[in-house]
Amino acid sequence: MYGERMLQLAKAADEASVKYDVRIILTPQPSDLYLLAKETENLLLFAQHIDPIEPGRGNGWILPEAIKAAGAVGVILNHAEKPMTLADLSLAIKRADEVGLVTMVCADSLKEAEAIALFAPNIIVAEPTELIGTGKTSDEEYVIATTSAIKRVNPEIQVLQAAGITNGQDVYNVIKAGADATGTTSGIMKAVDPEAMLDEMIRAIRLAWNETHGDA
Amino acid sequence: MYGERMLQLAKAADEASVKYDVRIILTPQPSDLYLLAKETENLLLFAQHIDPIEPGRGNGWILPEAIKAAGAVGVILNHAEKPMTLADLSLAIKRADEVGLVTMVCADSLKEAEAIALFAPNIIVAEPTELIGTGKTSDEEYVIATTSAIKRVNPEIQVLQAAGITNGQDVYNVIKAGADATGTTSGIMKAVDPEAMLDEMIRAIRLAWNETHGDA
Amino acid sequence: MYGERMLQLAKAADEASVKYDVRIILTPQPSDLYLLAKETENLLLFAQHIDPIEPGRGNGWILPEAIKAAGAVGVILNHAEKPMTLADLSLAIKRADEVGLVTMVCADSLKEAEAIALFAPNIIVAEPTELIGTGKTSDEEYVIATTSAIKRVNPEIQVLQAAGITNGQDVYNVIKAGADATGTTSGIMKAVDPEAMLDEMIRAIRLAWNETHGDA
Amino acid sequence: MYGERMLQLAKAADEASVKYDVRIILTPQPSDLYLLAKETENLLLFAQHIDPIEPGRGNGWILPEAIKAAGAVGVILNHAEKPMTLADLSLAIKRADEVGLVTMVCADSLKEAEAIALFAPNIIVAEPTELIGTGKTSDEEYVIATTSAIKRVNPEIQVLQAAGITNGQDVYNVIKAGADATGTTSGIMKAVDPEAMLDEMIRAIRLAWNETHGDA
Repeated sequence: MYGERMLQLAKAADEASVKYDVRIILTPQPSDLYLLAKETENLLLFAQHIDPIEPGRGNGWILPEAIKAAGAVGVILNHAEKPMTLADLSLAIKRADEVGLVTMVCADSLKEAEAIALFAPNIIVAEPTELIGTGKTSDEEYVIATTSAIKRVNPEIQVLQAAGITNGQDVYNVIKAGADATGTTSGIMKAVDPEAMLDEMIRAIRLAWNETHGDA
Repeated sequence: MYGERMLQLAKAADEASVKYDVRIILTPQPSDLYLLAKETENLLLFAQHIDPIEPGRGNGWILPEAIKAAGAVGVILNHAEKPMTLADLSLAIKRADEVGLVTMVCADSLKEAEAIALFAPNIIVAEPTELIGTGKTSDEEYVIATTSAIKRVNPEIQVLQAAGITNGQDVYNVIKAGADATGTTSGIMKAVDPEAMLDEMIRAIRLAWNETHGDA
Repeated sequence: MYGERMLQLAKAADEASVKYDVRIILTPQPSDLYLLAKETENLLLFAQHIDPIEPGRGNGWILPEAIKAAGAVGVILNHAEKPMTLADLSLAIKRADEVGLVTMVCADSLKEAEAIALFAPNIIVAEPTELIGTGKTSDEEYVIATTSAIKRVNPEIQVLQAAGITNGQDVYNVIKAGADATGTTSGIMKAVDPEAMLDEMIRAIRLAWNETHGDA
Repeated sequence: MYGERMLQLAKAADEASVKYDVRIILTPQPSDLYLLAKETENLLLFAQHIDPIEPGRGNGWILPEAIKAAGAVGVILNHAEKPMTLADLSLAIKRADEVGLVTMVCADSLKEAEAIALFAPNIIVAEPTELIGTGKTSDEEYVIATTSAIKRVNPEIQVLQAAGITNGQDVYNVIKAGADATGTTSGIMKAVDPEAMLDEMIRAIRLAWNETHGDA
């Protein structure tokens, strides 16, 4: 999604964020960041990637400062579709910290999650690559094991469990299993009515959170 | 340059474009495209890169449709800092044509320029990689040789000669040697007063063009 | 294939080369080049890739000089599984020429074949990527069109037509359609008896060649 | 170095290995592995890289099985000149374990060394990238900090300290500071007499080791 259609979804997410008092991260194309930042109030806009570069040379690379200036508050790093070398990942987290972008780093196994935790990103997405886009969720055991492994290295890191979320029930299960957050791309994009599915998922988060942590 | 500073330069370029009746291409970060498109009228905004992908998967890649929706009219491909494989370049030109983005492809040698011309982009940038950012210009012989080699393959292709342009005189020389256009990044970024340098360069284009082609 | 199994196939190819008086190119892993060069006499051993580097730094890259020293006489460049940027391809052909390695460059479309011909490699492999490993051959029209386009740019370049060759009949057809050479990987690797299939294919080349060019 | 010159150095290293009873790892081009394995007895030959692939497709990639068949006993991964994504590194270590190749993984910071240790390679090379080829050694503090961080994660991992080793004294210092091993490429390649420098370095290892660990 991009452009006008993305704007429409972003506005629905913005409203759901207020309605259920849940923080929602949206990860648009870089060229959509400015418009979405201007037209929404509560959404957390994350870029899909930054390159570990400084202002100056770098035609065709994504400059952290430019992403920040356009209104993003954070960035995804090491997504399975944009994997990074260890050296670049380490430097990109450092650059994001300097610029003031929240870092959300993808890990596709328990060991990768632990290794990434050592670099102290703000959020780790624990999503086994082989499940992306399949509609199959990580089992409860994987959710618990990755969450506790990450927290053991650094309890400040938020854990987002993302694999195979396709409806409100999946969202509910994952939060009940101890995840701080969850997420999906294909689950919303493939839904007949993406805005309705978004509402269902956000409502499920609120419900599961209340049951687990109380009404805070 | 990015954000507010880029907007200021873009506005100056927008005015110079009208003042001298010269078409100006600006190539900002993708996250700056929307704002610059909204705040300028005559500038031609080109993205720094697109990936040869379709809407759907591709987190962290640059989607041609999103670039177009944000207000870009064209795209740079195969810049020396973002070199592309032959297969990707061929496909990216095709995708840009489908979406309606003007293609401007960089070539760093005479033979590369000829080879790229076979893929029928709209513009070829003939800029020997070893001169980028050095302040040394391509000599007149290189300008003439690349221009005529490209036109021989496909006379519709515009030729932009870019290496080492640092002031109005360089701009004047290159247009007099037969280039359809010229360009610079470092020449403006490193100038003490980028807006003044921009004005000087655009004025030189108009002057050289009038002397070569008459007052059209 | 690699190691002992590759050596066995190489010896069979070596014999078939003499038996039918046909030149055979084999493209093993770099680590197999030395042994195969020592144990065969008539085979033309080509490396699967070289990087466009000079002796010195480059841990993990393939040095042209080392490939040559191990006994290779040529190298494949720009294979669909190892695509190269235009700049690297241009430089790799230059380095191979310096070192004395025959260059065989893959092109996956008519336009790519023409573009690559401008860089004057010794051989162009015209193999539409979408057919690799499928068992579907390029149609006669494609064979004729690519062969003549390449020869028009540079008549010295040999054209190898490779897509979807699975048996002797495919080989025969391609040579009859005007190709200088043909090739296959999966056609031999997937055969029940690779050595027998190799013999069948080489015999078919000799037959088609004799019918087309006479008994030379 | 490659070919005949590499063979000569390898033979000198082979003799030094026996003379001082020190295990020596040599990391030649893949095309030199077979010859060196046949012509030496005590050297440990490591490939410069493997790709995390299975036998089958992968033209131009380095197949772990082929490297092993040519006589290598191990492999370098994630060298600063061939950096790997976290996912590929994890998979390459797994493939090397399956095939029976010792893994030696490069880390260019303390945090990277710790993260890599979680993937349980056999050896970690702790070499700050900014010092490679400079002739400046890691200070004693860095050597001690990385060694103890790695051993805390997994005491089985051997630690090789490599930055800026240019002579026997550097080698001595690093082993005395607690490293299990050390290494250099440029230190030997740039020496006036590489074979003599090799002998000096190996002698220094034996001396430092005896002083630290006794005569074992």
